[in-house]
Amino acid sequence: MAETFAINDRYREGVLQLINQFSEFGATPEGGVDRLAASEEDKLARDYLCRWFDEKGFVTLVDPVGNVFGVLELDSSQNDTSFFCGSHLDSQPHGGRFDGTLGVAFACMAALAIKGLIDRGDLTSTFRNFVVACWTSEEGARFQPSLLGSRTFVGQMSVEDAWNCRDEDGVSLKQTLSEIGYVGENVSLKPDHYLEVHIEQGTKLENAGAPIGIVTSAWGGRKLSISVTGKADHTGPTPMEDRKDALLAAAKLIQEVNEIAKAANDPLHTSVGRIEVVPNSPNTVAENAVIWVELRGTSDSMLDRAEQSLASALSEIASETGCLIEIKNREVRDVVLFDASSNSQIATALDREEISHIDMTTIAGHDALQLQSICSSSLLFVPSKDGISHSPDEFTSDDDIERGFNATMVAISELVAQSVLSPTGEGCSCLKQ
Amino acid sequence: MAETFAINDRYREGVLQLINQFSEFGATPEGGVDRLAASEEDKLARDYLCRWFDEKGFVTLVDPVGNVFGVLELDSSQNDTSFFCGSHLDSQPHGGRFDGTLGVAFACMAALAIKGLIDRGDLTSTFRNFVVACWTSEEGARFQPSLLGSRTFVGQMSVEDAWNCRDEDGVSLKQTLSEIGYVGENVSLKPDHYLEVHIEQGTKLENAGAPIGIVTSAWGGRKLSISVTGKADHTGPTPMEDRKDALLAAAKLIQEVNEIAKAANDPLHTSVGRIEVVPNSPNTVAENAVIWVELRGTSDSMLDRAEQSLASALSEIASETGCLIEIKNREVRDVVLFDASSNSQIATALDREEISHIDMTTIAGHDALQLQSICSSSLLFVPSKDGISHSPDEFTSDDDIERGFNATMVAISELVAQSVLSPTGEGCSCLKQ
Repeated sequence: MAETFAINDRYREGVLQLINQFSEFGATPEGGVDRLAASEEDKLARDYLCRWFDEKGFVTLVDPVGNVFGVLELDSSQNDTSFFCGSHLDSQPHGGRFDGTLGVAFACMAALAIKGLIDRGDLTSTFRNFVVACWTSEEGARFQPSLLGSRTFVGQMSVEDAWNCRDEDGVSLKQTLSEIGYVGENVSLKPDHYLEVHIEQGTKLENAGAPIGIVTSAWGGRKLSISVTGKADHTGPTPMEDRKDALLAAAKLIQEVNEIAKAANDPLHTSVGRIEVVPNSPNTVAENAVIWVELRGTSDSMLDRAEQSLASALSEIASETGCLIEIKNREVRDVVLFDASSNSQIATALDREEISHIDMTTIAGHDALQLQSICSSSLLFVPSKDGISHSPDEFTSDDDIERGFNATMVAISELVAQSVLSPTGEGCSCLKQ
Repeated sequence: MAETFAINDRYREGVLQLINQFSEFGATPEGGVDRLAASEEDKLARDYLCRWFDEKGFVTLVDPVGNVFGVLELDSSQNDTSFFCGSHLDSQPHGGRFDGTLGVAFACMAALAIKGLIDRGDLTSTFRNFVVACWTSEEGARFQPSLLGSRTFVGQMSVEDAWNCRDEDGVSLKQTLSEIGYVGENVSLKPDHYLEVHIEQGTKLENAGAPIGIVTSAWGGRKLSISVTGKADHTGPTPMEDRKDALLAAAKLIQEVNEIAKAANDPLHTSVGRIEVVPNSPNTVAENAVIWVELRGTSDSMLDRAEQSLASALSEIASETGCLIEIKNREVRDVVLFDASSNSQIATALDREEISHIDMTTIAGHDALQLQSICSSSLLFVPSKDGISHSPDEFTSDDDIERGFNATMVAISELVAQSVLSPTGEGCSCLKQ
């Protein structure tokens, strides 16, 4: 057993090292990362990942929207049907070091662990390909909609439409991907299962003291960008009653979005995280304001009701302020149920290894939501201190990362290679401390 | 009389031509101008003005903060004590063609008309110097505080402090003035009177059908920038009750600023024209928001009361939202009374020439407010269609410009050169149609 323990330590160490390494690309003084999709910083992280794939002997592929795949080719006879594992490397503008990055690091080291078993001859039967996936522009910070890379990969969005998404400076995704060298070719990879590990972005695991959460479903969401048009005028002499103040109307809307959550019977999360104002000068009544609204809830019917409330507020505020209020963009994210049978397999394996776990729901979007539309998918959560994310204060301890990685390897061995990873019938105890 | 009519037509035409010419620098597709202080567009307008001074035989001077002066030297014995007339060439981001520019064009053509009289030998006695003044950064759009150039000229702000003002990209006024070549030397010019003509930015003149308004006083103001600090977090999973949403708190403040105006007994104008949010991402609860608040009123006591109401709102909203709310910057603009004796002289002269006029109050700030602190100053308004300003829709008709210019020449002749401009005792009827 000594040798397998040693190997395991190496992989667990490897996860921590990879996360630390990626943290350097776009590092901010506050200890977080600012690594917007397809930015210079994102390029550095991607380049590192591709070099790592090369060094470890994986085949690196990049698709037209910049999704990066590291393929551990184990069986070329299976028509490219592969087990996918991954997440994303882009971050929020003032984001944390773990969101997305942790899942990529887990996938890399899981792939390497499997390769180690092969290289040592401990894999005794055939095995389908294992693909590490790093999806483009998950965050929706620079480009909307979010989950752009995985959305395109599963065919929910065309490559053309994804390419034409523009950031606030009008730069298209295609242009910026070209500039960083990540417009690739169509890939023929097909996942038969997708596994993603992510930080929880909530406190349920922390409170339960469990190292891993099995996500059973995802809240639905509505994302709206709403434009308010008033009239530019001098903030001094213009009589108050003659003003059509787009920022004032937007402020009323922002409050109303918050009130809708308070008034809901079931849990409803609402927010406005972004506003753009024109001309945004202290001395000019705002002519235009655009706000980005999110409504998230457990059922489509409650989201319908929330949207109806918002629509009423829109027309009330429009008539109250004299502004024109229009919904410019509307994105619907349906409630998603993850593959129950895979989740049950994972739970059984974790129980066998005496690793505690809880069932969870995700409110945040993840690439796994997109993948579930084309193959069975699993989403696992590891603890995230105080539930903070999208912030430099985002933190998952080394212990939680190690425990989470062990649990992930149990899940992977169960889903893809139970028989071959555990020829002795000991499950994947070789991977536990 | 034919000759003087012809001359007069030329000057009135000249005003229109100058305004049209300046409109080209920073012209926007909507028909306005975007000519932020010390920008590339501002440089073009300044360069044109300096060339114009040179061509017309005026001495061009630039002071350390980029104020530009065109001096018509008529009497070198007077220790540089001069009659000043001017305004500004910078604009709001999506501003109009007349705000500031009209006053500069009026000053230029008034100077040229006086020079024409001298050149033709129609000036029969000594005359103090006439200075066309173009003040730097009046608008307060790119750099705060507003009235920066005139504020520094009158000694209310040091040159060092003015130089250190920074735009939202962190660029200092000194740096940008250096880049456009407008950091000059100290000038020894001293105004004994300052006259400024400006568009009204209100509808009183239009409603009264008067070509000119004599401004007797200026509202006071309080300009505050208020910073709201919450906590960055994911807009999805973070429970609503755990959020510290800086944008939501700012939205409540923006509404409260508006409510303060509604609740006031006397006319009080309040506004928030600008907001900056960090990180301003649709998926992240805002960590910080800064808003720029203006309170304007007719008395210092009512402004004190408004500030007290705002302070109460600040602490209520802070405790309601869990955000830290701090006033980062506070600028006080006192109520200003313009020189009553000069205004009375102007009114008498206009009556004599049968030009109708009304007394007015200004709510907007103008460079004349600053100049009144060191010399007698007069501020005249010409009509502005529908009162719209700080907008591409800002408009003053050619007729109103011509009538306003005639009235301005009457005022100037009265204030500086009644005897010499009207050797025949006909006042300045030579300048009227």
